[in-house]
Amino acid sequence: MVANSSFAEDVKAIEVSTGVLTAEGGYSAHASVVARQYGKVSLVSPDLKIKGNKATLGEFGFSEGEYITVNVPFYGESTVYKGVAELIEPDPKSSGLLDFIDLSKSFLKSFHVRCNADTPKDADLALSFGADGVGLCRTEHMFFKQDRINVFRDMLLSDDKKERQKALDKLEVMQREDFYGIMKVMAGKEVTIRLLDSPLHEFMPHNNDELTAYIKHTAQTNKTLSKSEITARIDALHEFNPMLGHRGCRIAVSYPEIYAMQVRAIFKAAYKLRTQKINVHPEIMVPIVMNMSELKLIAYGKKIEGTNYLGIVDIEEALRKDLKAKEVEYKIGTMIELPAAALGAGEIARYGRFFSFGTNDLTQTTLGISRDDFTAFMPDYTLFDLIDGNPFSTLDPRVKELISMATERGRLTRPDLVCGLCGEHGANPANVRFCMDAGLNYVSCSPYSVPIALLAVAQAEIDKAEVNKE
Amino acid sequence: MVANSSFAEDVKAIEVSTGVLTAEGGYSAHASVVARQYGKVSLVSPDLKIKGNKATLGEFGFSEGEYITVNVPFYGESTVYKGVAELIEPDPKSSGLLDFIDLSKSFLKSFHVRCNADTPKDADLALSFGADGVGLCRTEHMFFKQDRINVFRDMLLSDDKKERQKALDKLEVMQREDFYGIMKVMAGKEVTIRLLDSPLHEFMPHNNDELTAYIKHTAQTNKTLSKSEITARIDALHEFNPMLGHRGCRIAVSYPEIYAMQVRAIFKAAYKLRTQKINVHPEIMVPIVMNMSELKLIAYGKKIEGTNYLGIVDIEEALRKDLKAKEVEYKIGTMIELPAAALGAGEIARYGRFFSFGTNDLTQTTLGISRDDFTAFMPDYTLFDLIDGNPFSTLDPRVKELISMATERGRLTRPDLVCGLCGEHGANPANVRFCMDAGLNYVSCSPYSVPIALLAVAQAEIDKAEVNKE
Repeated sequence: MVANSSFAEDVKAIEVSTGVLTAEGGYSAHASVVARQYGKVSLVSPDLKIKGNKATLGEFGFSEGEYITVNVPFYGESTVYKGVAELIEPDPKSSGLLDFIDLSKSFLKSFHVRCNADTPKDADLALSFGADGVGLCRTEHMFFKQDRINVFRDMLLSDDKKERQKALDKLEVMQREDFYGIMKVMAGKEVTIRLLDSPLHEFMPHNNDELTAYIKHTAQTNKTLSKSEITARIDALHEFNPMLGHRGCRIAVSYPEIYAMQVRAIFKAAYKLRTQKINVHPEIMVPIVMNMSELKLIAYGKKIEGTNYLGIVDIEEALRKDLKAKEVEYKIGTMIELPAAALGAGEIARYGRFFSFGTNDLTQTTLGISRDDFTAFMPDYTLFDLIDGNPFSTLDPRVKELISMATERGRLTRPDLVCGLCGEHGANPANVRFCMDAGLNYVSCSPYSVPIALLAVAQAEIDKAEVNKE
Repeated sequence: MVANSSFAEDVKAIEVSTGVLTAEGGYSAHASVVARQYGKVSLVSPDLKIKGNKATLGEFGFSEGEYITVNVPFYGESTVYKGVAELIEPDPKSSGLLDFIDLSKSFLKSFHVRCNADTPKDADLALSFGADGVGLCRTEHMFFKQDRINVFRDMLLSDDKKERQKALDKLEVMQREDFYGIMKVMAGKEVTIRLLDSPLHEFMPHNNDELTAYIKHTAQTNKTLSKSEITARIDALHEFNPMLGHRGCRIAVSYPEIYAMQVRAIFKAAYKLRTQKINVHPEIMVPIVMNMSELKLIAYGKKIEGTNYLGIVDIEEALRKDLKAKEVEYKIGTMIELPAAALGAGEIARYGRFFSFGTNDLTQTTLGISRDDFTAFMPDYTLFDLIDGNPFSTLDPRVKELISMATERGRLTRPDLVCGLCGEHGANPANVRFCMDAGLNYVSCSPYSVPIALLAVAQAEIDKAEVNKE
């Protein structure tokens, strides 16, 4: 896949491609993060110029449909070759990777490595790489699949509650199957599921082709929305700074039915697995929490005049009685990804049993830097040595201070609070060591990064053991 | 002025209108902030619907060119009337306002009230309302004036350094006159001038009419840029989250010549006033600082291979020698408006002699809320009582913690560090009292809010005196 940059709706394209070459972005741009998640090679080169179906990279030109080969070594310069180079598929067994993972794991004590996995396939891969549970299952990625995005759009564009519920019921079936698959693969281990985080406009058609395709879809569903009606709805969802907008638990406050659907899907999957004697430990994670009131509402509900907001515990209880299911052990917790949440962690821990540090967003808000826009001025910052590496790869000292502060404050309220870090930072050995020193319980990273993180943990444990011996 | 919302380029329209009625926004939306700054009545009503040159407000309709009267009392419901209602112009003298201001000021001890003023007229007005200096002079507002915006655009769209410098020289003359006027009005008092803060795309044409007008302008200046060339440049400046993008001191890192121009304008004005025996105290404020390295670079410069970045002190020294001018007393300081800056305040205070808390941006980043997008979900947050008032009006407790932390850390490095709060929060009596308790030296607010802030300070001083008596 060759493109200027990638967006949420390109996840499928990255999944089916062998490698990704983009002109804009960096280590933590969308294309890089998703490619890493899928174990694809990914290269960002500002020299890439795309015009229509032709592209150039310096003096090297190629067209749509032509093959290129991209080589991105762990150390040293990356290279792009014309044509299909001969490749050797690595074999984890004969290469000694599996032995190396087993050896690393033998040094582990209380600190673990989980994985970021959105599909049973990812979870299975991560498990073979030594992951101890899922630290981050991003539920929005599940909606971008071809057959689902239009149902999700139906839900967003529905005119009344009934119509909306119909779309939600369809989505629930799909999500239930995802959760069932992931929890089955991870039998006996924790699976942390993050409820919807993305702003709603990310799900809308982004160009004329997508719009036309969606209108075609609506024609098949008895619902006819004109192009201008759909465009008006899309415009209404526009935001000036989507990173700081109507997203995460803020969506759940306005539209409780979306999280309710996700919660039902999680428990229906969990109940079914329990009847099959498979041990499940779902952990339901609420994103973009800024204060305890939000988490309290979403977890435990609230009755106000005229409205009864159902919390996760209410939904679970009603569903369990309705299905005559047996209880499953579960936890409700929260992402800590805003400075306000880190500072207010003591209060938030009253209503959450675990914290997961979402360090991408925490870095963006703490430093006031959008990771997508940062690439425009990062070269100048590097030139004048104003920043110590890329803060989206190596944790910034101020972000570290907030993580330590939140862990301390949270544990004062709830001494057994489980704390972990999820996101791209978790794969960086320097960050892993910080997480251990800060008293966290685990890091969670993409499946292909799990062995790297395990090695970092093992090295730190060996260092600690040596110090204690002296 | 009746509009859905307003943007940076609408400042002039608000200035010439008698009142502002908008459909979107809230207390701290652009239209409200600018209207308050100019002492205009401003009302936000989500019921306002605009279609072409007609608007309705519930059952009440009116057309372009028709007069309406807007009444927004300090307490109680606001009203919109058809036609021109009879108004009584308040007279500060006969109404007792000036006596009230004098009385309030007589109770003041060490804590002061400054004003936010971008023009000599604003500064003069604020002075008559009891302001003790300028706490925030926003230099970008000066560029939005009709005759200047095109010169600023010429600068941004210039092809080479020479062309860019030509545009900068023109802008320097304009800025010098602004600074001269403000410092003259504020003779003997501090004037804090914030260097350019806005992202550059805010200055570009935003619609076809503006684009056409700008192309007409370029034709007069020997420079011919085609529509597609200009559009391409505008597109290149696009950002996903402008709030977290290439703005403030980040622009100065990439384009040192813009701040250099502003610094020269400040000192040329200051030297001239000194020769006229007028006492000046310019304070140069660097915005969006996230770490000490940025401030060190901009204040003291840096020599690296091939590049000599001139700091403010270098520019001042060279200019003074060049003009054979006499030294003026000045200070370099920084906005504290990012959580990273608040946490890193101890280091930042090494290179800055004052801190000014930019609480709008600090609230946005700490809570992860864009003030423009917040209005979409604020009603739901209010319904479920999830937030204690509007955080853009009443300081959030976590933002307060960061302000206290930054003041403490900064003063440990530099015991005589001057700390103030600028922005809309400064006019709210509850916030004024917090600022006093947190050890700050002043608040700065719009001219019309100065008497309210003075009263709040006087009341707090009386309370303190009574407690000490007991």
